[in-house]
This record gives sequence, structure tokens and C-alpha cells, in this order.
Amino acid sequence: MKTLTFITGNPNKAEQLERYLCFPVCHKKLDIPEIQSLDVAEIATEKAQAAYAIIGTPVLVEDTALTFVALNGLPGTLIKWFLESIGNEGLTKLLDGYEDRNALAKTCFALCDENGVHLFQGECRGRVPSEPRGNSDFGWNPVFIPEGEELTWAEMTPEQSAVTSMRKKAVTALQAYLEENYES
Amino acid sequence: MKTLTFITGNPNKAEQLERYLCFPVCHKKLDIPEIQSLDVAEIATEKAQAAYAIIGTPVLVEDTALTFVALNGLPGTLIKWFLESIGNEGLTKLLDGYEDRNALAKTCFALCDENGVHLFQGECRGRVPSEPRGNSDFGWNPVFIPEGEELTWAEMTPEQSAVTSMRKKAVTALQAYLEENYES
Repeated sequence: MKTLTFITGNPNKAEQLERYLCFPVCHKKLDIPEIQSLDVAEIATEKAQAAYAIIGTPVLVEDTALTFVALNGLPGTLIKWFLESIGNEGLTKLLDGYEDRNALAKTCFALCDENGVHLFQGECRGRVPSEPRGNSDFGWNPVFIPEGEELTWAEMTPEQSAVTSMRKKAVTALQAYLEENYES
Repeated sequence: MKTLTFITGNPNKAEQLERYLCFPVCHKKLDIPEIQSLDVAEIATEKAQAAYAIIGTPVLVEDTALTFVALNGLPGTLIKWFLESIGNEGLTKLLDGYEDRNALAKTCFALCDENGVHLFQGECRGRVPSEPRGNSDFGWNPVFIPEGEELTWAEMTPEQSAVTSMRKKAVTALQAYLEENYES
């Protein structure tokens, strides 16, 4: 069986991947500068290639975007800078001038090995509440209410949020690939 | 006399540099992926080093940030993605939920040659009008009123806007360096 190294500096993402994926993965923090782009797939692809060039064994990286419909795609892949600058409170306030509070969350995993880069993506539609709600341990979960729900992801149990998680959808695609290609 | 190559894909920036700088500079478009950072100096430094590694003769690059005080630094160096996504109208609307419409414009030139990277920076304080005003040919000029003025940069003549331009201030520092180090 080949081993896979997940490149992340975010312990929450490492823990979540372990929970979603039935496949042994090691974790490694590696400082790879992310390129500026609004496309999760482009960022993940570049990051995976850069990490593979350093590590030399199969690597997995992830990029996530939170897109506000009223802001024509922003914050998108730049969400981490928005969070760092204005926090969840600021994110909800950005939409105060707009009626449309719809949002789209996207995750893209990129796996790079000797055969090149493979992408696994997931999406979830939702909306942004007027104020952040719930435990703010995991990024912008307090400002995302998935479609058909009333609670934000931060107000749900991990089991509840997994049902709509775009990351879970992406991991399901990744799981199928790994079963086919990485197990002997 | 050494030659200097200004790396930019923006013809307006090339034209403006020619107007501000009394020194011969050639222009070249070069696709260098910008790293994600909120620091103009960090982005310009990385870009200059990458361009110098490709070109091999002295290069000049520039990075500009537009910082909204109410948004704790955003859009900052990410301004081009904001412009692309929501335009000048969207930029003014971002501040609709806030009383504070103060802004700070920053430019950093980085020159990379055999002696390493030299930085030349300029800043200008100002505020964001409730609606974009003036000719929108040059980026976000319609949404910036420099301190002590009533017109946006886009409503001024090039001579008027040069008085407060942060890019002009940075170029003045660059000019002094070039006179001392680049002329025989």
C-alpha cells in the first residue's frame, strides 16, 4: 500500500480528514506560498505540485473557497485573509448592503504522485446569517447555513455537519480513487 | 549606465512610471504568479527575485495595496481581485455598513539586481466616497479621495493626482537611488 501525506498547517483540517477518510494518511506542515487566484482547483494543483517536488512521495493538499453571490465570488479562495482581517462578524457585515445572502462553499483536494495531479471537489450551497452563530473553533463555520437547514455548521455536531459538508463530498471522491489506485 | 526592466502587464502603470521617473526603463510583461500575502513589500520582494532569476538583468516590480480602515486592512494587496469581482461600485458598497470610510493607499517598488532587493515605498491617506466618481480607466482611482482634497483621483488631471500619489512618492525615492547607483 502506498502512503499519502496530507500537507496542512491546520490541525482542524487534519483531524477532519482523519474522521472522513478511511485510509491511513500522515500529516505534514510545509510552508508553500499559495499563489493568488480565485480558482480553488488552480491553487490546489500548484500547491500539490510544489509539495510533491519537495517531498517526493504522494501528497495531498486542499484548498477551500467561500463565495458570496452578492459579491460576485468574493471572498472565494481569499477567505483566510478575510477571516484574519475582519473575522466572522466582519464577514456577515460585508453583506449588510445586499439582500442576497446566498453563498457557495467549495473544497478541492489535489493529490500529486508519479502520475500527475488528480482533483477531488465538493460544493455546498447555503446562506450567510446576519450574525455569526455557534462555536468559532473552525474557521467560518459560524457564518454558513447549509441549504435546507436552519443552523450554521458551527451550531451542529460534527455528525450533523458532515451530511452537507463540501469537504466530506470531496473526500468521498478521494476515497473511491484511493481504494482503486492505492490499495494492493 | 545599467538598464532597468519594469515588469508589468498593466500599460497604465508603465505609462505612469515613464511620466514620473526621469530614467530610461524598458517594460516587459512576464507571468509571475503572485504569492498570497497582505504585505506589499513581501509580494514585491518575491516577485522581483523571481523576475530577476528569469531575466538576469536588473528588474523593477511594483505592488500596490488599498487598505480600508473599517475592514482592518482589506482589500489591501488583494485589491485587484476585489476590482475584478465587484468593481468600484462594489468597493464603495462594502463600506455601507460602516461610518469609517478612511483608506490608505500604499505602493512598493522592488528593484532586484546583483546586490539583492531594494524597496521604495510610498503611502497616501484618503477616504472612500459613497459612489465611484470620475473616469474609471485606472483601477480604483474613482473610489479614492486623497486627504485634504474633495475630488477623487479619477476626477483629477494627471498633474493634480501626482501631487498626492503614493506611487509618485515611491518613484521619487527610486529616482534618488538610481541617480546614485545606476548612472556612471
